[in-house]
Amino acid sequence: MISGTNTSLLQRRHKVLGQHSPLFYDEPLNIVRGENVWLFDVDGKRYLDVYNNVPHVGHSHPHVVEALSLQASTLCTHTRYLHDNVVRYAERLTATFDDSLSMAMFTCTGSEANELALRMARHVTGGSGIIVTDFAYHGNTEAVAELGTAFMAEAKATRRVRSIPIPDSYRAMGGLTGEALGEAYANCVKNEIAAFEADGIKFAGILLCPDFANEGLLNVPSGFLEKAVAHVREAGGVFIADEVQAGFGRSGRHMWAHQQYNVTPDIVTLGKPMGNGHPLAGVVARADIIESFGASSMYFNTFGGNPVSCAVGMAVLDVLEQENLLQNAIDTGAYVSKGLRALQNKYELIGEVRDLGMFFALELVSDRILKEPASEASHKIVNTLRREGVLISKIGRYDNILKLRPPMPFKPEHADILLAALDKAFSQIQEEQ
Amino acid sequence: MISGTNTSLLQRRHKVLGQHSPLFYDEPLNIVRGENVWLFDVDGKRYLDVYNNVPHVGHSHPHVVEALSLQASTLCTHTRYLHDNVVRYAERLTATFDDSLSMAMFTCTGSEANELALRMARHVTGGSGIIVTDFAYHGNTEAVAELGTAFMAEAKATRRVRSIPIPDSYRAMGGLTGEALGEAYANCVKNEIAAFEADGIKFAGILLCPDFANEGLLNVPSGFLEKAVAHVREAGGVFIADEVQAGFGRSGRHMWAHQQYNVTPDIVTLGKPMGNGHPLAGVVARADIIESFGASSMYFNTFGGNPVSCAVGMAVLDVLEQENLLQNAIDTGAYVSKGLRALQNKYELIGEVRDLGMFFALELVSDRILKEPASEASHKIVNTLRREGVLISKIGRYDNILKLRPPMPFKPEHADILLAALDKAFSQIQEEQ
Repeated sequence: MISGTNTSLLQRRHKVLGQHSPLFYDEPLNIVRGENVWLFDVDGKRYLDVYNNVPHVGHSHPHVVEALSLQASTLCTHTRYLHDNVVRYAERLTATFDDSLSMAMFTCTGSEANELALRMARHVTGGSGIIVTDFAYHGNTEAVAELGTAFMAEAKATRRVRSIPIPDSYRAMGGLTGEALGEAYANCVKNEIAAFEADGIKFAGILLCPDFANEGLLNVPSGFLEKAVAHVREAGGVFIADEVQAGFGRSGRHMWAHQQYNVTPDIVTLGKPMGNGHPLAGVVARADIIESFGASSMYFNTFGGNPVSCAVGMAVLDVLEQENLLQNAIDTGAYVSKGLRALQNKYELIGEVRDLGMFFALELVSDRILKEPASEASHKIVNTLRREGVLISKIGRYDNILKLRPPMPFKPEHADILLAALDKAFSQIQEEQ
Repeated sequence: MISGTNTSLLQRRHKVLGQHSPLFYDEPLNIVRGENVWLFDVDGKRYLDVYNNVPHVGHSHPHVVEALSLQASTLCTHTRYLHDNVVRYAERLTATFDDSLSMAMFTCTGSEANELALRMARHVTGGSGIIVTDFAYHGNTEAVAELGTAFMAEAKATRRVRSIPIPDSYRAMGGLTGEALGEAYANCVKNEIAAFEADGIKFAGILLCPDFANEGLLNVPSGFLEKAVAHVREAGGVFIADEVQAGFGRSGRHMWAHQQYNVTPDIVTLGKPMGNGHPLAGVVARADIIESFGASSMYFNTFGGNPVSCAVGMAVLDVLEQENLLQNAIDTGAYVSKGLRALQNKYELIGEVRDLGMFFALELVSDRILKEPASEASHKIVNTLRREGVLISKIGRYDNILKLRPPMPFKPEHADILLAALDKAFSQIQEEQ
C-alpha cells in the first residue's frame, strides 16, 4: 500500500467535513509532523516540501514556536487595550514599505485583508468597480469571491467586477512582444474602466497579485503594471497589491513583490507567510486612506493584532533577518532555476521555466510551437512526485503549470532532490508517450 | 497619574494604526499579563475581568497553552492534507448539536463564519434577502457589514437586508406582553418577507444571535423565535443562529444558546470563545447544506481547521468539561444575578437586570416609568469601575446597558468584588445627582 494514506480517517472526514473539502493528491496524504523543509507522514516516510509557502521560515521553526508559546502563556487579548506588540510590529512592518505606506490594520486571514482593502478602496473613491485578471483568486468571502471571474458563482452574478486577460508574455495576445505587449495589456485596463463608465458603475480601482502567482507566476510584459496603474489613477482609482502569496521576501531581491516595479500601491494586503501558519494577515496602506476609512467605519477585528499574533509576526521577521533568507532565495533560487532550465533542454514537455527568487513555475505543453497545455502530464507528475517523496502542486487556467514554492530555508541540497525527482518523473512520462 | 495608561505608547499607536482604531475607556489600559479572571496593567495593578468572553476558560489557561505549544512545535499545515485533529474536533463539536447539524467547516474569525453562512444560505435557497434585527452587529466583512442596519454604511447601501425591531420585552412594542408580544414581533418577520417579495428580492433567511447579545441581552418575548422561524421556513428561508458570542456553554444550561428555544437552526456560526483567544471559528450546519454548497463552491480556508487551531479548540472543550464550567455558569450566575437584583432594589438607575448563565446586562434609565436611557451614567460607571480595577463595558442602541460577561471560571468570590465596585459606583452617581 502507498505510504501516508489513511482510509478510515478519510471516511470519518467525509462524514463530518463533507465530500468536497479539498484534498491534495490522488492518494491524500496524512501528514503528522513537520520540520524545516520536511514533512513526515503517518507511516514515518519523509517528504520534501516544495509547495507550502505558509510555513515561510520552515515548518515548526523553534524561534517562532517559542515566541508563540511565551506570549500565549502571558497574555492574549485584543487591540482595545494598549499593547506594545501590535505597535512595535506595525512599526517594523511599515518600515519595510515605501514611506507613503505608513499605517497598518491587522486581520486574521488574507480573505479578511482583501475584504478590508476593497471596503477601503470603495470608501475613499466612492466607487465600486474593481478590475482584476480573468484568472484571479483572492479569497473566500463574498466580495472577494466576486473577484474570481473565471470560476466563482458570486463573480458571475456581479456587475462591479471586470477582468482583463492575464498579462502573459508566454501566451501573448496578438503576437506582440516587449513594450508593445505591455502597452496592449495596459490598454485592456483602460477599456474596462471605460466599460464601467458605460455601465454607470463608478470605478474604484485595480487589485492584482504582483507575482501573478495563481495565473502561473507570469513573466509580466515590460511596462504593463506601470502603464496599467497610470490608467487607474487617471480615472480616480486606487491600486491594491495583493501580497498575500508573493510577499515577505519570496523574490529575494525585495521584501514585497510590487517593489520590482516602478510603481507604489495605495493599499497592500498581506497574509499566508506572515505568521508561519498562525492565522495572521493585514493591510498596509496610505495614512490618509486608513484615517478616512477608520473615521467613517467602525472597524474592529476581535483576534486581529492580538499580542500573540504580533509576537509570532515579529518572530517571523527575526528569522528572515537572522537566517539571511532573502539572500538564500536569490542564491538557492538561481541554483534551482539553472537545474530547471537544464530539464527544459532535456524534455520537450517543459514549454517555459519561470522563476522569481524562491518561486518557480514550469508550464507544460504537448507541443512547444502550438503550446497545447499538457494538463494530464502535469497531473501525473504531481502525483508521481508525491509517491517519490517530493511535494509540489499545479496551477493555471489549464492546470498545466507546475508550482514550486518551498519554505524559504530551501537549500541547494534540497534542490538536488527535487531536480532528480522531476528528472525521473519527466523521463517516465517521455517513455510512456 | 492613573494606573495603566501609557501616553507614549498611545502616540506611537496613533502613528501606525491611526486615530480611529478603537480603544476601551477614557484612559486606555495598557494590559501586559492575564491569568484566569485577572488582567494586570503595565504598572502591576490587577483588574477583575468581567467583560472578556474570548478567554473563555480563563486568561492564559495552562492546558490550552500546552496544547497550542505542543502542536505548534510538531506540525501546523492545512486541511488539504489529512489530519486527525480536524476530524476529531469536528466529531466532538457536532456531537454537542442536534443530530441534524452533523457537519462542520472551519474558519478563523466570526466574520468569516457569518460570511460562509450567508454564502451557504444564499446558495441553497437561490435567494439573497436576509432579515436581521435593527441593532445587529455580526462582523466586519462587506456582506456581514450589510447586516448592521443601524450604523454600517454598507447596510444603508443594500436592498438585500431588511430589519425587524429588536424583540425587546423591556421596551415592548404597542404595550403588549407575553405571547401576544412574541407574536407581534414574529409578525414583523412575516412583514419583511412580504416586503422582499414586493421588492422583487427572493428571500434567503434570517440571521440572529439567540441571546440578542449586542441588542442588550434581551429577555426575548415568549414564542417569538419559534414563530419567527416558522414564518421563515414557510417562505423557503433558512435560520442561521449566530453563536459567535453566545455559544460554548455561557448560558450554563445548554452548550448553545439556541438550545433554550424549541427550534433547531439550519446553520450555526461559532467564534470568539472557541479558541480561548486563538483565531478559531466555524460553521456547523445540516449535511445537505454543506454538501450542496461544497459541490458548487470551491471553498478553502488556508488557516481554518489547521492542526494547531483544532488542538486548541479541543483543549477548550476539555477544560469546559474538566472544570465543570457550565455548572459554574449556573451556580455563580445565580449568585451574581441575586446581587445585581439587590443593587436594583437600592438604585433607581437600574431599570432592568437580565441574566443568562454567565452573561448579565443592566439597563440603566433615568426614570423607571419613562425608561429614559441613562447613557451618560453608563459611561461614568464603566470608567469608574476601570479605575477601581473592574473591567466591564456597555452596549445597546442608547449605549445605556452595562455588559457583564466574564471568563467562565468566574466565582462567587469574584462576584463579591464586582458587586462591591458596582455598589460604590452607583452610590457615587446617586450622590452627584
